Amino acid sequence: MNIIDIIVKKKNKKVLTYEEIKFAVDNYVNGNIKDYQMSSLLMAIVLNGMTEQETIDLTKVMIDSGDKIDLSKINGTIVDKHSTGGVGDKTTLVLAPLVSSVGVKVAKMSGRGLGHTGGTIDKLESIEGFKVTLTNEEFINQVNDIGCAVISQTANIVPADKKLYALRDVTGTTESIPLIASSIMSKKIASGADAIVLDVKVGNGALMKDIDSATKLANLMIKIGKSYNKKTICVLSNMEEPLGKSIGNSLEVLESIETLKGKGPSDLHKLVLTLGSIMTSIALNITEEEAKLKLLESIKTGKALEKFNEFVRMQNGNVNNIQVEENYVSIKSSKDGFIKSIDAYKLGEIARKIGAGRLNKEDEINYGVGIVLNKKVGDYLFENEELLKIYSKHADVNIKEISECFEIVEEKIDKPNLIIDIIE
Amino acid sequence: MNIIDIIVKKKNKKVLTYEEIKFAVDNYVNGNIKDYQMSSLLMAIVLNGMTEQETIDLTKVMIDSGDKIDLSKINGTIVDKHSTGGVGDKTTLVLAPLVSSVGVKVAKMSGRGLGHTGGTIDKLESIEGFKVTLTNEEFINQVNDIGCAVISQTANIVPADKKLYALRDVTGTTESIPLIASSIMSKKIASGADAIVLDVKVGNGALMKDIDSATKLANLMIKIGKSYNKKTICVLSNMEEPLGKSIGNSLEVLESIETLKGKGPSDLHKLVLTLGSIMTSIALNITEEEAKLKLLESIKTGKALEKFNEFVRMQNGNVNNIQVEENYVSIKSSKDGFIKSIDAYKLGEIARKIGAGRLNKEDEINYGVGIVLNKKVGDYLFENEELLKIYSKHADVNIKEISECFEIVEEKIDKPNLIIDIIE
Repeated sequence: MNIIDIIVKKKNKKVLTYEEIKFAVDNYVNGNIKDYQMSSLLMAIVLNGMTEQETIDLTKVMIDSGDKIDLSKINGTIVDKHSTGGVGDKTTLVLAPLVSSVGVKVAKMSGRGLGHTGGTIDKLESIEGFKVTLTNEEFINQVNDIGCAVISQTANIVPADKKLYALRDVTGTTESIPLIASSIMSKKIASGADAIVLDVKVGNGALMKDIDSATKLANLMIKIGKSYNKKTICVLSNMEEPLGKSIGNSLEVLESIETLKGKGPSDLHKLVLTLGSIMTSIALNITEEEAKLKLLESIKTGKALEKFNEFVRMQNGNVNNIQVEENYVSIKSSKDGFIKSIDAYKLGEIARKIGAGRLNKEDEINYGVGIVLNKKVGDYLFENEELLKIYSKHADVNIKEISECFEIVEEKIDKPNLIIDIIE
Repeated sequence: MNIIDIIVKKKNKKVLTYEEIKFAVDNYVNGNIKDYQMSSLLMAIVLNGMTEQETIDLTKVMIDSGDKIDLSKINGTIVDKHSTGGVGDKTTLVLAPLVSSVGVKVAKMSGRGLGHTGGTIDKLESIEGFKVTLTNEEFINQVNDIGCAVISQTANIVPADKKLYALRDVTGTTESIPLIASSIMSKKIASGADAIVLDVKVGNGALMKDIDSATKLANLMIKIGKSYNKKTICVLSNMEEPLGKSIGNSLEVLESIETLKGKGPSDLHKLVLTLGSIMTSIALNITEEEAKLKLLESIKTGKALEKFNEFVRMQNGNVNNIQVEENYVSIKSSKDGFIKSIDAYKLGEIARKIGAGRLNKEDEINYGVGIVLNKKVGDYLFENEELLKIYSKHADVNIKEISECFEIVEEKIDKPNLIIDIIE
């Protein structure tokens, strides 16, 4: 077997065998196959696709490239949640303590971000003292003790994905449903959960730009989950506009806390309840309606917020010290009207440029900076009313660039449909 | 401009601009763009193609990456000839002295082989003492003095092609008509000829496996030639069976000498006359029929062979010392019948394995070894009559492998059509 034959086979639209996929990935991880050969194979996969079986095989090979986490010492059904990522996505920060507060065990490993803002781990680190690494024992003990732990993904889970992802990022080979599906599912399965709830973002602020491709991705991930006997449910949610109103690490933590109090933005509130009801229903074996009532009750009584505080305290964080940049500029609307669209992608890029996210792995995040929207799609805005605040020491703001993110029209605009579909 | 955007553009089947192609190639040559990025772009080009204009632009960028040879000090029209390569292809060894003997100026730069047998330069080096490097001045003086010189390609002609070709070789991206066309044409145009005759081989022993793709390649190369005002003619010739009867460096030189005497294999004789008539007709501005008569006359009178001897002497070679391996095994047919096919590709691989060609650039060629066929497609063979001789010190011969190269049938088989098409 040699890599050139495998590349040529995929170039010729042929189906690769499990052995060929394993040969390619294993030898890439150990360095026998070079970056320039793997990137050629990846581009052939991007353009010629992979069958379901090839994608399942690739997922298995990736899982087998590293450690598998054993969560069997945790009592109860472990339901993991993953989002395909988008602008302003702070769902995990709300969801983990919320479902935990009603008795669901949350043992979550998250990543850092190479996107517009940080990942969940970066956001948690904007809380003073928060410790993102625990030993395996500490992790399991904390979940058994208080029901919730969120830590940074340990190095040796799916090392193949780590290496492939970094290569895809610099070779124009990110957009591929089988590659995205196997990347996500290999990490979720290796992380040891019993069931998986996936938040598949759709829209210009997300990797999947349209419902059709998001649906394909969802179905493929469900098939992979089934092949491991892991119940997998996909929620397709809107990412045309940012999720909630805050973009930027500590700003998003503050918004999460407001949401746990029941005072958050309505779209974030709704998404968290939808995902949370599904997770709780599976974990506690109750109906989704029952689950939803429990979650609402927990928010209302303050149990959800208390769980957040407990979980942060357990991981050494100080919720009273979340530093937001003091300086901000308020950008006003130049006209009256309904907001027809807010460009999530462009706002995300602006947030990244002021330091909220990384362009390269080695970039440092400025936790305090970010953007807070005043209004969202469907809202009415008067001339000179605030569009958004930019929190940044250097008010180096391109007004034109920002106003281009908003489309404001005279006719009434309906609030967008946040939950597009639920597929299982 | 950045390479990832360029890769993604081609991935999305968009047309690249001249500036984008130049950015990619120039920065690849100078090392700013990495092998793994270029191989991803190459695979996208292989799968999504290039327009004529993109291919012309790529050719220009490649030519501009190195030196251009100035042949204006040579009197007369310079007609270059190039073959896309195949098993047993010794055409240049016959053609150069033959057309030179009737007054055509031949100033030819050739390559070494990374194929089943050596390239023209390797074959010439199997003649004792033959010097393949001349200074630019020596080269031009020799052509003006005796009408013919064949030298090794100097290092700095189209360095971009050198680097791209090496990468394509190890990333499964060789099979692409625009990439092949720009690779060939950039070298031909940079080498300074006034007109170009291309021998496009078609069949399992060649890069182009079928007539359709060979025709596309031919038309594209003609278009590129036109954009430089260089008359370009393509002869599509059969490469299902090896050309002539000899495969291996010194064996091919001996067969070339026989052909210059008029005693060579009929297919080689025919191909050389076809290509030679076209070259001579252009260079001397006479009809192809007139040209052909001149060439036949030159063979008949011994002028062609004398020109070969003169050209070899001028480059320090000793035609009386061409060493062929003394040891050989003769392989016999196991049945009576007509030869329906001879697998050029497999025979080429066998020749390479015994040392006639290189697998890696650093491999050394054994000039004396090779294969000589007794019969060709359409010939009748008795049981126990010789199929071929293998010249090699170590008679490590896999009879089954060799007999699988020949298909022998009862029904009469016509001689294949050597010249498939002539396109201009």
